[in-house]
Amino acid sequence: MKLLRLLRIQELTYNKKDKRLAFAIKNIVGSKPLNLSLYRLAFRHVSASKEIKAGVKISNERLEYLGDAVLGTIVAEYLFQKFPYRDEGFLTETRSRIVNREALNQVGQKIGLPKIVESEMGSKVPYSFKSLYGDTLEALIGAIYLDRGYYFCRKFINSRLINPFFDLDNIIATTTNFKSKIIEWAQKENKEIDFNLKSVEGSQRFKEFKVELNINSEPFSEGKGATKKKAEQEAARIACEKLQIIP
Amino acid sequence: MKLLRLLRIQELTYNKKDKRLAFAIKNIVGSKPLNLSLYRLAFRHVSASKEIKAGVKISNERLEYLGDAVLGTIVAEYLFQKFPYRDEGFLTETRSRIVNREALNQVGQKIGLPKIVESEMGSKVPYSFKSLYGDTLEALIGAIYLDRGYYFCRKFINSRLINPFFDLDNIIATTTNFKSKIIEWAQKENKEIDFNLKSVEGSQRFKEFKVELNINSEPFSEGKGATKKKAEQEAARIACEKLQIIP
Repeated sequence: MKLLRLLRIQELTYNKKDKRLAFAIKNIVGSKPLNLSLYRLAFRHVSASKEIKAGVKISNERLEYLGDAVLGTIVAEYLFQKFPYRDEGFLTETRSRIVNREALNQVGQKIGLPKIVESEMGSKVPYSFKSLYGDTLEALIGAIYLDRGYYFCRKFINSRLINPFFDLDNIIATTTNFKSKIIEWAQKENKEIDFNLKSVEGSQRFKEFKVELNINSEPFSEGKGATKKKAEQEAARIACEKLQIIP
Repeated sequence: MKLLRLLRIQELTYNKKDKRLAFAIKNIVGSKPLNLSLYRLAFRHVSASKEIKAGVKISNERLEYLGDAVLGTIVAEYLFQKFPYRDEGFLTETRSRIVNREALNQVGQKIGLPKIVESEMGSKVPYSFKSLYGDTLEALIGAIYLDRGYYFCRKFINSRLINPFFDLDNIIATTTNFKSKIIEWAQKENKEIDFNLKSVEGSQRFKEFKVELNINSEPFSEGKGATKKKAEQEAARIACEKLQIIP
């Protein structure tokens, strides 16, 4: 109640632009912002950063850093609860397919960030910057987390981002076999690939395999895991990342 | 109140081993566990995993996956609040120096995990597995999060892990300059290193630099950033990781 009263008083000080932003946030998030300045910051792209004192610029990058972490945790738990019988390798991989630049960028556009960014930044929108809306979405999540707390933010992410915009069945059906991806790539590029078991550490009961992936006999990436297969997948996944092979 | 009553009823069903575990958890976490089975699972290392049905084994790995994410977020916010004027590059780097295998492993040992692991796993402790206590600590964080919620878990991490065990001033004083690290390494190893600006994308106002790090004229890693310096640091950081140069 106290908060709501404070909120109403704050609202009296809103100028036209503030009102527009608060309304847009309410549409996306589901309820009015309490601390509007956090959201204003979330839409301040680094290209429009403001120098508050010598050498200290403010932009949404810090909020993006925070929102990235919060989103990662909430998606981690979402999958943890949804798939009680799947192992952590599956969960990690599925998560990385939800929380990636391209996917977030698309969702950011779908929930209507472009219009707010445009209105907040005016002519300063760096159209050519590809991950703008994904970055802004993460910053928005950071702002929501600070403004409304963890559980509010979780509800927002689950019900307004994951459920409507991610087709989990489809994501899972195509969950990547990185080893076959990298082999496919090598055939196309006419490279030779081999996996080399470098070491097995640990006791009889628990082993850690270390596998090296070589491209044309040169070490390229390395993976570890409790089985040789897992270590190979890990090495292949890192190689795919380095080569920017999109799954 | 209701929860506390339920807790007391649950306690009546504890056997001797349960009581010992509950007591040990209380010592570490600061209050009694509500759902003891979560903690039991947190201490079930993969080497002692139990097959609950064909092909489905349970161990603490899923909790470790969850705890890793939760810890990352809580440390991210801790640094965000503590350093209001530092940029996200600094925050990310400092976080990675707190949340890394070696540091977590040490903290896990200091808060007394070895004794619980030993008591829970008996002779099955995989002594030779280096990151055992760091992994277990992450699984424990996952269990605390599920058992007591986000804010309880945050208080536990801030007041019982970060504050007592991490000397932030020291961590920051030595925050790594990866570029100088990799140059140092190259001199020692007698390799040639150079940074090659590959592309600059974006508008006048916002640029994204892409830099490639070459070792003996072979591309080795790549970094992106809003300035050339940041992109070089990023490329150097990735190279350090790949070469396992510990900062």
